[in-house]
Amino acid sequence: MTDAASLADRVREGELRLHELEAHADADTAAEARRLLVESQSGASLDSVGNYGFPAEAAETAIENMVGAIQVPMGVAGPVEIDGGSVDSETYLPLATTEGALLASVNRGCSVINSAGGATARVLKSGMTRAPVFRVADVAEAEALVSWTRDNFETLKDAAEETTNHGELLDVTPYVVGNSVFLRFRYDTKDAMGMNMVTIATEAACDVVEDETTASLVALSGNLCTDKKPAAINAVEGRGRSVTADVRIPRDVVEDRLHTTPEAIAELNTRKNLIGSAKAASFGFNAHVANVVAAMFLATGQDEAQVVEGSNAITTAEVQDGDLYVSVSIASLEVGTVGGGTKLPTQAEGLDILGVRGGGDPAGSNADALAEAIAVGSLAGELSLLSALASRNLSSAHADLGR
Amino acid sequence: MTDAASLADRVREGELRLHELEAHADADTAAEARRLLVESQSGASLDSVGNYGFPAEAAETAIENMVGAIQVPMGVAGPVEIDGGSVDSETYLPLATTEGALLASVNRGCSVINSAGGATARVLKSGMTRAPVFRVADVAEAEALVSWTRDNFETLKDAAEETTNHGELLDVTPYVVGNSVFLRFRYDTKDAMGMNMVTIATEAACDVVEDETTASLVALSGNLCTDKKPAAINAVEGRGRSVTADVRIPRDVVEDRLHTTPEAIAELNTRKNLIGSAKAASFGFNAHVANVVAAMFLATGQDEAQVVEGSNAITTAEVQDGDLYVSVSIASLEVGTVGGGTKLPTQAEGLDILGVRGGGDPAGSNADALAEAIAVGSLAGELSLLSALASRNLSSAHADLGR
Amino acid sequence: MTDAASLADRVREGELRLHELEAHADADTAAEARRLLVESQSGASLDSVGNYGFPAEAAETAIENMVGAIQVPMGVAGPVEIDGGSVDSETYLPLATTEGALLASVNRGCSVINSAGGATARVLKSGMTRAPVFRVADVAEAEALVSWTRDNFETLKDAAEETTNHGELLDVTPYVVGNSVFLRFRYDTKDAMGMNMVTIATEAACDVVEDETTASLVALSGNLCTDKKPAAINAVEGRGRSVTADVRIPRDVVEDRLHTTPEAIAELNTRKNLIGSAKAASFGFNAHVANVVAAMFLATGQDEAQVVEGSNAITTAEVQDGDLYVSVSIASLEVGTVGGGTKLPTQAEGLDILGVRGGGDPAGSNADALAEAIAVGSLAGELSLLSALASRNLSSAHADLGR
Amino acid sequence: MTDAASLADRVREGELRLHELEAHADADTAAEARRLLVESQSGASLDSVGNYGFPAEAAETAIENMVGAIQVPMGVAGPVEIDGGSVDSETYLPLATTEGALLASVNRGCSVINSAGGATARVLKSGMTRAPVFRVADVAEAEALVSWTRDNFETLKDAAEETTNHGELLDVTPYVVGNSVFLRFRYDTKDAMGMNMVTIATEAACDVVEDETTASLVALSGNLCTDKKPAAINAVEGRGRSVTADVRIPRDVVEDRLHTTPEAIAELNTRKNLIGSAKAASFGFNAHVANVVAAMFLATGQDEAQVVEGSNAITTAEVQDGDLYVSVSIASLEVGTVGGGTKLPTQAEGLDILGVRGGGDPAGSNADALAEAIAVGSLAGELSLLSALASRNLSSAHADLGR
Repeated sequence: MTDAASLADRVREGELRLHELEAHADADTAAEARRLLVESQSGASLDSVGNYGFPAEAAETAIENMVGAIQVPMGVAGPVEIDGGSVDSETYLPLATTEGALLASVNRGCSVINSAGGATARVLKSGMTRAPVFRVADVAEAEALVSWTRDNFETLKDAAEETTNHGELLDVTPYVVGNSVFLRFRYDTKDAMGMNMVTIATEAACDVVEDETTASLVALSGNLCTDKKPAAINAVEGRGRSVTADVRIPRDVVEDRLHTTPEAIAELNTRKNLIGSAKAASFGFNAHVANVVAAMFLATGQDEAQVVEGSNAITTAEVQDGDLYVSVSIASLEVGTVGGGTKLPTQAEGLDILGVRGGGDPAGSNADALAEAIAVGSLAGELSLLSALASRNLSSAHADLGR
Repeated sequence: MTDAASLADRVREGELRLHELEAHADADTAAEARRLLVESQSGASLDSVGNYGFPAEAAETAIENMVGAIQVPMGVAGPVEIDGGSVDSETYLPLATTEGALLASVNRGCSVINSAGGATARVLKSGMTRAPVFRVADVAEAEALVSWTRDNFETLKDAAEETTNHGELLDVTPYVVGNSVFLRFRYDTKDAMGMNMVTIATEAACDVVEDETTASLVALSGNLCTDKKPAAINAVEGRGRSVTADVRIPRDVVEDRLHTTPEAIAELNTRKNLIGSAKAASFGFNAHVANVVAAMFLATGQDEAQVVEGSNAITTAEVQDGDLYVSVSIASLEVGTVGGGTKLPTQAEGLDILGVRGGGDPAGSNADALAEAIAVGSLAGELSLLSALASRNLSSAHADLGR
Repeated sequence: MTDAASLADRVREGELRLHELEAHADADTAAEARRLLVESQSGASLDSVGNYGFPAEAAETAIENMVGAIQVPMGVAGPVEIDGGSVDSETYLPLATTEGALLASVNRGCSVINSAGGATARVLKSGMTRAPVFRVADVAEAEALVSWTRDNFETLKDAAEETTNHGELLDVTPYVVGNSVFLRFRYDTKDAMGMNMVTIATEAACDVVEDETTASLVALSGNLCTDKKPAAINAVEGRGRSVTADVRIPRDVVEDRLHTTPEAIAELNTRKNLIGSAKAASFGFNAHVANVVAAMFLATGQDEAQVVEGSNAITTAEVQDGDLYVSVSIASLEVGTVGGGTKLPTQAEGLDILGVRGGGDPAGSNADALAEAIAVGSLAGELSLLSALASRNLSSAHADLGR
Repeated sequence: MTDAASLADRVREGELRLHELEAHADADTAAEARRLLVESQSGASLDSVGNYGFPAEAAETAIENMVGAIQVPMGVAGPVEIDGGSVDSETYLPLATTEGALLASVNRGCSVINSAGGATARVLKSGMTRAPVFRVADVAEAEALVSWTRDNFETLKDAAEETTNHGELLDVTPYVVGNSVFLRFRYDTKDAMGMNMVTIATEAACDVVEDETTASLVALSGNLCTDKKPAAINAVEGRGRSVTADVRIPRDVVEDRLHTTPEAIAELNTRKNLIGSAKAASFGFNAHVANVVAAMFLATGQDEAQVVEGSNAITTAEVQDGDLYVSVSIASLEVGTVGGGTKLPTQAEGLDILGVRGGGDPAGSNADALAEAIAVGSLAGELSLLSALASRNLSSAHADLGR
């Protein structure tokens, strides 16, 4: 009987619990034991899942109850020329996805962007937030807490920053709903996406609030952060990086390479991305930015659940002197190049493709560069899909004329 | 010189383009050639990315410009007891993530659910949508198109269903904004997530619209679908599966296992998930449903960009005769057990763990079961995080009392 | 001592309550007595308020605790030429407002619309809603209630329609959130705005639901109606009338009369009404439709609180062969020409100006005509404000050039 | 032939235009002439409209093309005891409406609030906004404008404040969408609602922006203000006054006076106002705040179209030691006690009832007091409607038991 089989038996017998195996064996054996248990319970074979290419120990801060790994195909688009605030070069874009045609679409967009001399990208606002909710006795106490917060920012900043080497508290904004008071803390987290950092720092600040005021903490996150939910507060005020990319494409490139016209793309963008999204009461005025965000997040070890916020994006298209101007503005793109999934082997290599693994110099510049690269990838994806939709109709219009 | 090196050279020399390599070599060699190119351009080493565990050919419908694969650790939570409409058993839940503590959290939630006798789950509405946008001359023509659509549903249904063996057109709803008319087609796509199916079917129906009316198709998707954007239309009307799960947990289980009280969880849910999300102008009234959706999507080959819609979820918590009732309702969960990423080896094994790989009997039941499992996983995650937040404050309150 | 003074004394002495005066005197005397009380308590003089031009009895179904009346200046814009589904004529538009420049603005818009041959308007969807919320035991019962509702529409229709001579139940749509089930009843209420009608009818239907199922009614309105709150469900699906108006204005009219260009207005509309509203996470993609809705509501006896829903409007502007096309689509305009405030003397005269007082022939056509008139008034207002904004910048641009 | 008849003839003959009559006659005669024209065109009689109680000249800054006035019945609720930041007294609340039962409902709520010792109210944030939109060349210029704005606040403040005696510029927040840059200016406008003031001040600041940067003004309002449209930016960040009111009602008062229980109201509020509004994707988590806002706006000369923003309100209800705690938080209540409609005779009397006509001491305190009074009126309305809904179900539940 292998070590794994023996461990599995001990779980079956109730001697051990599923999450305790790493205390009795190395991580790879523990994962193997879990596979045995899951296989016998479900009838599944987990050979492929078990065939992972990194020591299970490497994932110990990333997952519990590990059984193996999922493999998602990764490809590259580009290289694409980017004039960014923190990146100024030609770079391949790594994307991991199972959606056929996505890579091809982004790749075509990159090629057209290059024909136009490259895209421009800038991070225009930055800050990771956490918003605890406090209970107060009544409206009068709520007013007192709001005043106290405004008067004691430095105290809160000291408490918060004592917990972190890198993070800086930028501001604290109070919101009141009856006897619930939300304080939205916003931090510069440099190259880290920063959720853990700001949670710990905010917890320390909350202790001060509880000590110095009558307020009681109800939850360290009161959903005004807002993390991993579609929320207007993020779409309006931003969270993580607010990043914009744009490009101006000469008319002949649009016609020759995209088989449509600047006018057709501008009209389509207005009817679909602006009017259609308006009628859908959406926070996302774009075609498929989430596709690129999700695929580049996966390829670079970002938090997949934050694709939600990454979809708060507005795409614009207009005709400028006969040429086509297109932009993509992502309000709340939460990215990091240190910590979390960025340390795993394949994900670290994804960051290496962009040259942004680890801390940047100056601090924060690697995460800024990653945001700019994702914005340009999104721009490429928008350009490609919009023109595909537009040219399809042009073709069909042409066919109509031929009848 | 290896085949791959030689291919890479031909790209460098401009003889071949990056996406044409599969025409000149097998898929694995093509991927290797791309790795060489990316490595030399970026300075990155792609050894881990190149160490994937499936034949590259297997991914050919899932990606283009493949260079390898990203590996994401996968774990299991549970097993958890589910009383569902399409699943009625104890099952492990597979989750792939890089967010530490997520698996542990869901696992704890599952354990508590089991102590309460299991969770109930139901798919309450189902339908995949695609909403093309047409241009008409003016409001009078818009009215005519709306009337025509209402009068010719069967014609549209015939045209749409001719393109598919499985899909059924359920209804077509018109929306008018000036001279833009959006027709929202809704289909039963059985066990497929169905975006490709409904796109093709809707395109056929659009041809009929253009033939029979004065309307001109502007875009096959007019963003009222709404795919991969946060949109109220999905949160209100649903897209894919609308699925709800709930559980009633005895007071002693809450106290002994979750170290808090039903009252504390109910209050916290109200202030955070209801009032906090209200103040954030959010479509997501939950704590972290997107975490579970993203991780189970990744583990079962779903489209990661659709995590956006999967986050349109409302969590409720209330005290019932001293016990705790908790529910999670996900409005727009787009899942499939056939097609797309479900065919890849590790992802197929993820589906096997749930016993839902491939087409169900009756058709659609496997995708329903997957939706119910994700809803229960989300319920477990909500329960666990809410109680962790609540108990943390209780502890700190206790500590306060001890001073 | 007058009768009024004597009544006031009895209130002061606690013998009568403020709302009981009509039982002891005629309505005008009761109002006078209340003025005396308010004057002595507040120090205000209420002479103007007391100088109202209708018998207080006439307002007895419109208000309680009456002290007099507020007078709001009313003006007219137009006449404007309308090609509507229920109105086909030249008509003055009555507006009551205290916002200087509004009448002038709408009047200018009407004049330009006439120069273009008039505006087109259509009601494209219609239905007043009420959505009670029920409590069920759990998700399984929720599913049962949804099924029951789908299977028993005729029963619900019979029960609902027994309470009304005019209303017709069109459909009932269930929405589930955990153990709360919302049933959205939608009615054709003909020429009545219909809130009272649908409330009574829905109450009767709720009795059936409670009798025949395990569900318990929690509230006759569960906020999915949605009445008098900004809500995406109204912006997307409509409530009351969904009405659209448009006009195509020749280039020379734009230049000569509006002192700007079609291109400038189209660009301004895109940046302000579409992109600006998108970034604000708004349900209103227009410039000031609410101004016209509020003023015409006031002039015709509509419910002012429903201006909220009336602001769910999208304005589009585009260049068509050098001319300007503008449209306004109001999703949820709740109007009536019978009942409520329409019976008051000045308000009835407001309706007379439009020729829509009382029930229409066919039933519903007067309310449709009112909706179309408001949509055209809104179109005039949008056109005028957009061109004012555009020409101001043009002028300043011209001034710049002159430097 | 009367003067009015003669004027009307000259309009009919094309000699004069409808809006030019005040140049040829006094305002009352001009209004009479217009009535004649409208009557002959429409067949309406405008006797009641013409029977207005103020000199038409008094309305000359409030309306153009005046024909008379609409009369809306006004009543009072209360008096109600308010502990506010700027009001600390017992006061009647004036409401003008045509919705039967509204006054009775608010009055009952006031009475219950008094039984609980009065309500507390506070203005917690204040500021009127205007957000022009500028066009820049591209993202790089957008970044430059954002930086310039942050560095030149004092310059903008000087320019803006030069145009006003009272207003103070508080801050300017930039938002970027591609090549559109929105600057949201926020002002303290003291006792004025302030739209005109901030428009003029912002126009002056825009001149500086255009002089000092490459940006071109597209529209003085870019819809991020957001005025008279439902928008999350207002619901989240506030506009005008953010005001909250609350009250704690002893259990016996709830039972005796409202015929229900704290538990029933809390449950109903959660299912209807929180969960129901969540499912409707609403910005208004309340029962009927807009009713009170609309009626008090009308009675005090506020801008009726701003009822839209006034409906961005959240109502909470919870059981506290057996008693009932209820709060109403209105995020964006735009009120003034000087300027606009506040100068008209009946409206000025409405303000007098509250003791807030004209400028306050300190400046802004009258408008604050008005906001607090409206919040308390809304609280009374919520309390009354929620308990009516709850007790109706209780009664029916009781009846059920009796069967």
